[in-house]
Amino acid sequence: MNPPALERMRRFLQPRSVAIVGATARAGAFGARVLENLAAFQGRVHLVNPRYHEIGGRPCHPSLAALPEAPDCVAVATPREGVSAVLEEAIAAGAGGLVVFAAGFAETGLPERMAAQAALSTRAAEADLPLLGPNCLGFAHFASGAGVTFSAGPPVRPPTGARPPAVGIASQSGAVGFALAQAVERGVPVSHVLTSGNGAGLDIADLIAFLAEAPDCAAIACVLEGARDPRRLLAAIARAEAAGKPVVVHKMASGQSGAAAALSHTGAVAGGHAVWRAALAYAGAVVVEDLGAVMEMASFLARAPAMPAGPGVAVVSTSGGACILAADAAERHGVPLPQAGAAAQAVLDGRIPEYGSARNPCDLTAQVLNDPEALAACTGALARDPAFSLLLYPNTHAYPFSLGRIPVMAEIAAREGRFLCVPWVAERREGEGTAAAEAVPGAALFGSVERCFAAIAAWQARAARRAQPSATPSALLGEAQHARVAALLEGAPVLTERRAKAVLAACGVPVVPERLVQDAEEAVIAAMGFGFPVVLKGEGAALPHKTEAGVVRLNLRDAAEVRAAHAAILANADRAAPGAALDGVLVQPMLPAGLEVMLGAHRDPLFGPVVAVGLGGVLVELLADVAVAPAPLSLPQARAMLEGLRGARLFQGFRGSAPVELERLAEIVCRVGELVARHPRIRELDVNPLICGTGGIVAVDGLIALSAPGKGEEE
Amino acid sequence: MNPPALERMRRFLQPRSVAIVGATARAGAFGARVLENLAAFQGRVHLVNPRYHEIGGRPCHPSLAALPEAPDCVAVATPREGVSAVLEEAIAAGAGGLVVFAAGFAETGLPERMAAQAALSTRAAEADLPLLGPNCLGFAHFASGAGVTFSAGPPVRPPTGARPPAVGIASQSGAVGFALAQAVERGVPVSHVLTSGNGAGLDIADLIAFLAEAPDCAAIACVLEGARDPRRLLAAIARAEAAGKPVVVHKMASGQSGAAAALSHTGAVAGGHAVWRAALAYAGAVVVEDLGAVMEMASFLARAPAMPAGPGVAVVSTSGGACILAADAAERHGVPLPQAGAAAQAVLDGRIPEYGSARNPCDLTAQVLNDPEALAACTGALARDPAFSLLLYPNTHAYPFSLGRIPVMAEIAAREGRFLCVPWVAERREGEGTAAAEAVPGAALFGSVERCFAAIAAWQARAARRAQPSATPSALLGEAQHARVAALLEGAPVLTERRAKAVLAACGVPVVPERLVQDAEEAVIAAMGFGFPVVLKGEGAALPHKTEAGVVRLNLRDAAEVRAAHAAILANADRAAPGAALDGVLVQPMLPAGLEVMLGAHRDPLFGPVVAVGLGGVLVELLADVAVAPAPLSLPQARAMLEGLRGARLFQGFRGSAPVELERLAEIVCRVGELVARHPRIRELDVNPLICGTGGIVAVDGLIALSAPGKGEEE
Repeated sequence: MNPPALERMRRFLQPRSVAIVGATARAGAFGARVLENLAAFQGRVHLVNPRYHEIGGRPCHPSLAALPEAPDCVAVATPREGVSAVLEEAIAAGAGGLVVFAAGFAETGLPERMAAQAALSTRAAEADLPLLGPNCLGFAHFASGAGVTFSAGPPVRPPTGARPPAVGIASQSGAVGFALAQAVERGVPVSHVLTSGNGAGLDIADLIAFLAEAPDCAAIACVLEGARDPRRLLAAIARAEAAGKPVVVHKMASGQSGAAAALSHTGAVAGGHAVWRAALAYAGAVVVEDLGAVMEMASFLARAPAMPAGPGVAVVSTSGGACILAADAAERHGVPLPQAGAAAQAVLDGRIPEYGSARNPCDLTAQVLNDPEALAACTGALARDPAFSLLLYPNTHAYPFSLGRIPVMAEIAAREGRFLCVPWVAERREGEGTAAAEAVPGAALFGSVERCFAAIAAWQARAARRAQPSATPSALLGEAQHARVAALLEGAPVLTERRAKAVLAACGVPVVPERLVQDAEEAVIAAMGFGFPVVLKGEGAALPHKTEAGVVRLNLRDAAEVRAAHAAILANADRAAPGAALDGVLVQPMLPAGLEVMLGAHRDPLFGPVVAVGLGGVLVELLADVAVAPAPLSLPQARAMLEGLRGARLFQGFRGSAPVELERLAEIVCRVGELVARHPRIRELDVNPLICGTGGIVAVDGLIALSAPGKGEEE
Repeated sequence: MNPPALERMRRFLQPRSVAIVGATARAGAFGARVLENLAAFQGRVHLVNPRYHEIGGRPCHPSLAALPEAPDCVAVATPREGVSAVLEEAIAAGAGGLVVFAAGFAETGLPERMAAQAALSTRAAEADLPLLGPNCLGFAHFASGAGVTFSAGPPVRPPTGARPPAVGIASQSGAVGFALAQAVERGVPVSHVLTSGNGAGLDIADLIAFLAEAPDCAAIACVLEGARDPRRLLAAIARAEAAGKPVVVHKMASGQSGAAAALSHTGAVAGGHAVWRAALAYAGAVVVEDLGAVMEMASFLARAPAMPAGPGVAVVSTSGGACILAADAAERHGVPLPQAGAAAQAVLDGRIPEYGSARNPCDLTAQVLNDPEALAACTGALARDPAFSLLLYPNTHAYPFSLGRIPVMAEIAAREGRFLCVPWVAERREGEGTAAAEAVPGAALFGSVERCFAAIAAWQARAARRAQPSATPSALLGEAQHARVAALLEGAPVLTERRAKAVLAACGVPVVPERLVQDAEEAVIAAMGFGFPVVLKGEGAALPHKTEAGVVRLNLRDAAEVRAAHAAILANADRAAPGAALDGVLVQPMLPAGLEVMLGAHRDPLFGPVVAVGLGGVLVELLADVAVAPAPLSLPQARAMLEGLRGARLFQGFRGSAPVELERLAEIVCRVGELVARHPRIRELDVNPLICGTGGIVAVDGLIALSAPGKGEEE
């Protein structure tokens, strides 16, 4: 379905008039709750319910048609069975859009309910009417006070006075979205809360695209269970990021049970968590594993400018214990805490008592209670030092004496273009002055020292990524190569090793040379040609699992061993697949030992072609040290996948083996990505192993399985 | 120094009278702040300062001697230089103990300041006077309102009315300790805050031992930077745990930089984090990596009874999104969410709308707003089901409608002996009703769903550990074996492989058989005796790194290869160590390939002998997949070390290799532990590798290095 035009979305989600269908005086009913949440609404509210003439002093109309104007937004507070009729009325009345709270549609898994939801989708799309829900909690737009939701909170009130950049929330789960929004009550500015529920009309991608264009939304916080069309979502994220609007994503349903729960919750197919994480990161989102960190991360990214100076952080503390926490967390997250230059150091040495610490992380000690100017002097000196982009003040107390330092330090830092990060040392507290602290320009608060440094690391990574030219997917294979591949893919759906290696070779992936021989003497001749030692492998369509079938013989050092191996292979092949014809026996040179890399691809039901790479042996098989990404991918992405493996140090050489040329390996990964992206019949591909040795990088084995012809549509 | 008797500690830390030396009217000075923090003190306050006759209407005395009574606790608010004189006065006056706030002692690293602190220690110990500090923030005892601290908060007020079990805080860092204590302001019961600062008198072990005996402290929360004598600390923890009082520890200074910071902060030597974590866990502490989780973990463990029923958790939610968060977190932490039995399931099916979820995790949906009895019915049914010990209610809103469910559900659960866990879904909030929620009996609140399940997993692990008989260190080696070892350790400080293996063999560790030969023909005869293939290794004191020296030859398959290898070894030995005499050449059978295990030990400056074990190859060398523990250790500990390795699945068999007998391997680990614990001259030991194969577990190589004679004191 084409997303509605931006203008239509704006009319609907930043409405000047809201109609509540199914309005009621009955306290606690959805209709009554929506009316309460519109208490501060700056626009016009219309009540619709044929059973009432008035409710609480407001006129109540029998239908949408009877309203004095076409409402920008219609909130449907009727039971499920009445929804489609209201949709028709809304279309006829020229309404701007529909919010459907009722549950009991596709999330039940029942065919008739899924059909009912599909009918709503279709009708709304036909009429170009934006639809939110069903089974959603509605939305809130704070600037206009539009709380089109039955949520118990937070109150939706326009902000008063100037405020820092605000976060827009997009969520499938209404309760989680509005729970996050409660941060507004402790001073975190929120611009919108948009909940899509079952997503029959607007989905998460549409909501993100809308927030990307909303001027009062400075950063997007997205809570995601799943998506029917990940690529639309990723594209929306990429566009928001390209426009400079940070997108912070928390992906729920990361495990098996969570995925099952998501299916019954909104009918969303969750998809593999690793692929999601990789895909979201490549689209430029900041992925946050801790839901509690989403709002502070989004706030921080919205407020903090690009890195103005060096990547260092200067810690200015009054507690030695907090300095230790900071040093630990900085180390864990790879955030540098360099020492100050001479000018700043002189100030620190002069102002900090000898029982504190004048070295970053700086402990000014409780003495600042008696000498507050020392704090200002040290802050100023560090802010002027080119090593630091950020200053960090660990806040121990929810009291004015400590909170009061934040605006002072932030202002000093801002004069030099620096930003102030303020982590709560023990836990976030609320009290006198804490909401004001959230509003200090040029500063951001965090729930813990640990989360603060995690956020700083993410910020630095994002700045580095944005500084690079955007990477386009690789295009290493030409049309002639693709034509050759297509020809090779004609035929049996499970390719023999030889045919699979021919496909890889056609893509420019180096494969081990080989000869297919028909008898033992031919094998000996081929072996002499390659030089000993050699490898012999039975080759035939009926032998996909060669090691198990006993048709692989390694390290054959002379003619006699070759002959013996040839005989053994024929015998074992016959035992493993009696009567099946062998194509022959492959003879390959035995490559010297090297680093084994596993490279594969499969077709993911959500993401389509996905490439996976890992280090062979125990690292892949036991520890799941595998990087995945949707294909096709760019060279920098492939490079990052390899460098992000837990065993990545092996690439630098291990136990005497030579270092691996990562650029070359990344290029091979990209070639495989282009292969599976361009040829949708490829259901599964396995190059296990690629041997990385002194002779270069060579694929020693290959397995390719195809879908039946007709399956695997063109993309 | 012997710790003061419990009675003396009680007099000091739960005082009925407090004297402030250096009392002053000057607002903001330490003396004035202490007086403010004693505003709710139920005992008697005495002010001492020769410069004043009265302060704020209270009489001010010229000295401690002039007081009408011997004060239980003396708070020293004078500058550093005056402290030792006050100490003398306090001793003379028969005071109960001294709190020294002043900084500038041993934490400066300056010799004269370290000497000054040592003088305080010695004098206080001589006089049996408990001393807290210097460089500390003092302490608080809430039941008596004794806030003997200059901290800005929290106010130290006796609790009113009944309250849930309270947490006692022990910390070196005063700011971190009192920052944690601020939780009391949002309703978390705190009994004590005790901060040791530089620990010249009372140290963390003493404070934990005190809290273990304090009736108003139900659980201990300890924030630890380092300890001079870890074994005293571990013993105090073990005793508290044995008495049923949970000890939750957050270890700071976990990285290199943090350790450096700790040294300058309190002069504490931080020690290796992995050894600390292992040692604390073995002592029975619950180690928490997230400082923000310490108070809620301690509270939870204090309130929750031993597991009353099955290990399952029943999630009762009104939000589908929260159910997904719960399913994900349960899976991450290995907490089971089983389905209910038939009786409870019938209730769930009857009460939960079809668009919710009647399967654990249960989504009762927002419909409970209209049908609150459904919530009570489902809660009761699940509480009666034997699969579940815990019920879990994810709290989305800081409003009465949601918070009000907590006491209702907790009471229903408690009737069946079950406990209620309540995680905040998005973030912890404070507001109307949140403090009351913290006080609900039979319930515990958590800052997030993730932390809640981490705490449940820790609770279950603790219950399982306490259910086992306590394990004593192994005692597998007898006196005769130790005597043989002692004899073997006489001589050169670096043992040859042969001598090292003899030590291992004396301890009952299986070693590969070998013959030491003097020429090639003897080598051939030995090889024929063992059977081919064999291994040859040069043996001599000058050849500790044999592989690098080229004096190791593997997989020798016949006499000719043995002769050639022998010659090569002699030549390479001469090249590597010209002129050095060889003892000869070792001939060993070549063991079939098997799983390689690395087993070692070293002497840690803090913990003494420490054993380390890991899986050989990339797992140890690249990924640091190593388990450590102080020696000697028990068989269950050794077993847990092996099972906790990331690569532990390899023990079950991998790529055709046979499963490893873990009991046997654990026993070998224990033998090595006893060896290094009993023979302090052993500075370092390395058995790399142990080969675990079809023939059993065999040490193929051994390296032992000794301290010079005289070093390495008896323990």
